[in-house]
Amino acid sequence: MISVPKYIENTKNYSPSLTVDEIVKKYDLNKISVLWNNENNYGFSKKINNHIKLSDFQLNRYFDPLNIQLRGKISSFYNLSIDNVIIGNGSEGLLQNVIRSFCSFDDEVLTFNGTFVMIYLWSNINNTSCKKLKLSENYKYDIKKISSNITKRTKIIYIASPNNPTGQIIKKNNFQKLMTTIPKNILVILDEAYYEYAKAISDEYPNSLDYDFENLVILRTFSKAYGLASLRIGYAISKKIIIDSLLKVKLTFETSILSQKIAMMALDDQVFINNVTRNNSIELEKYYRFFNDNNINFFRSFGNFIMIDLSSEKKSKELYLKLLKKGVFVRLLNAFGLPNCLRITIGTSDENEYCIQIFKKILSKL
Amino acid sequence: MISVPKYIENTKNYSPSLTVDEIVKKYDLNKISVLWNNENNYGFSKKINNHIKLSDFQLNRYFDPLNIQLRGKISSFYNLSIDNVIIGNGSEGLLQNVIRSFCSFDDEVLTFNGTFVMIYLWSNINNTSCKKLKLSENYKYDIKKISSNITKRTKIIYIASPNNPTGQIIKKNNFQKLMTTIPKNILVILDEAYYEYAKAISDEYPNSLDYDFENLVILRTFSKAYGLASLRIGYAISKKIIIDSLLKVKLTFETSILSQKIAMMALDDQVFINNVTRNNSIELEKYYRFFNDNNINFFRSFGNFIMIDLSSEKKSKELYLKLLKKGVFVRLLNAFGLPNCLRITIGTSDENEYCIQIFKKILSKL
Repeated sequence: MISVPKYIENTKNYSPSLTVDEIVKKYDLNKISVLWNNENNYGFSKKINNHIKLSDFQLNRYFDPLNIQLRGKISSFYNLSIDNVIIGNGSEGLLQNVIRSFCSFDDEVLTFNGTFVMIYLWSNINNTSCKKLKLSENYKYDIKKISSNITKRTKIIYIASPNNPTGQIIKKNNFQKLMTTIPKNILVILDEAYYEYAKAISDEYPNSLDYDFENLVILRTFSKAYGLASLRIGYAISKKIIIDSLLKVKLTFETSILSQKIAMMALDDQVFINNVTRNNSIELEKYYRFFNDNNINFFRSFGNFIMIDLSSEKKSKELYLKLLKKGVFVRLLNAFGLPNCLRITIGTSDENEYCIQIFKKILSKL
Repeated sequence: MISVPKYIENTKNYSPSLTVDEIVKKYDLNKISVLWNNENNYGFSKKINNHIKLSDFQLNRYFDPLNIQLRGKISSFYNLSIDNVIIGNGSEGLLQNVIRSFCSFDDEVLTFNGTFVMIYLWSNINNTSCKKLKLSENYKYDIKKISSNITKRTKIIYIASPNNPTGQIIKKNNFQKLMTTIPKNILVILDEAYYEYAKAISDEYPNSLDYDFENLVILRTFSKAYGLASLRIGYAISKKIIIDSLLKVKLTFETSILSQKIAMMALDDQVFINNVTRNNSIELEKYYRFFNDNNINFFRSFGNFIMIDLSSEKKSKELYLKLLKKGVFVRLLNAFGLPNCLRITIGTSDENEYCIQIFKKILSKL
């Protein structure tokens, strides 16, 4: 019998829920809105060559471990040096690499309850404890709490902006103020997975590339607005010294060459990104109106999702199931530590209308 | 300034060597044989649909975290249960996950000098010390050494068969004898990246799926005989309890859906694998004859590569450079701990002939 470390032993195995197809069959659904994974339901850019000829790629060859092509493309796009950019297996892969690269035994990750679950998971898998601060009233970040909870053990502070699932951002002033309270030997991860959406929603969303902090790493991804979740490409932007450390711990060949090539094509079509994010802003307003009109407690969002508060776990689970049985798939937030809430991804116009229509019917029967 | 753990700080950053294109330009080469990465120079199966239509895949969607389709396909192929198979980002990704899943601080990996360098690298990155046993005369495994070097700290034993770069295998008897000397709380990794080649070379190569040990994990890959190195798909075969632990530490979404789909198509064309591996066996014999005829110290191989011993680091480096300048790219083995040796990948018939022809010319000028 092979023993495993306690923190691995205590990690639960992923238990699969029903797939979309299985639910469709179970409830005999003829219309569905898949709004549970914050995916881009518009798909991906039509300018990406839809017909990929495999023989154009030397699939049998190992590729450049430094990923110069894609890193070069991303850094040119943002007018950065290639030394400030690294790619990884999605934001998830980068989170893992950041923790592994910087945390020793006894170090601690400091973040909030009610944020991206992967930071909890990857801290645990790397045997790094994760301290979760409670969100304030209305699930808001109280960033002063961060400063007052820093200890000698704090090595990484994780903040998502926009935050998944609450939708909240941290404005420039507040972020800069926060950074002055954080010692320079603590690394701050600013997860901007929904960056493109937030930028389109409001000028209040800061351009984080203007920040000049030696202890900051910014995460962005091709999984959200670019609509390429299944290709697993994220990237991190930081100072060269941080990127150099991350390059040491990444897999030698990370990630598939096809994913890298498609991501490069995706970056070339900013018209697609503009359309997708503009639609998202418009569709969000529809939800705001609907929730306002029906006294549903919702939170304005800077992402392609919206969170509502049903005030009890029982009510949120009931609503989740009622929606599911009618083909509207939304997200329960127990794993995020917010069991009273549901998260709805902003889909296409048609999908959102269907969601609102079903929601209305459910409300009328209460 | 963010401190990094000592073992990360002491890890060197990858320093790129010249690319094939750059060498071609530098030496104005009009013919080349790329024989340095143990890739399959025949490419990949022609039965894999060469024209991939991206819109056939829901690239915007996250996929099944349990990878049921590809794991199911691999397990059916070997007549195993799906519970005995996991996929990962190449053998490299699996090695990383095995170490992370089972090793605690103070545990040790036990292996040989002169084997796959990634085990040294990934032990280090995970802060697990790696004890390297010296190979015996003629770079042979002395497996008795393993048994006598087991300590309380030993948690993982890594053995590659065929071994990269020596080409040697461990026969059934010897492996079974070895396993009886290894306590059941030590996990044995049997890396069979070159399995398909070895099987075609000799019946002496055991079918490791016949082994029934609770503490054994077998690694295989689509990067070698299947010719899909750039897609990053490897897989591990083991008891359910081991696979369950590995499932806990893998990335939620590992690896790109396109890679998974292409791997499934690749598995369907065993005629390709048979042709590739049969050619490899034939081509190996050509090298044996050539090295025999010219008194070059070589080692019979069970992989798609062959190792030669030049008796000094100086001589091996000189030969490496002379070959390189004529367009024959082979591998220096310093990183493997075998600086006196070179490793030559078995390429296509044409590439091997060119290699031998250049080699002859160099010898004639000595």
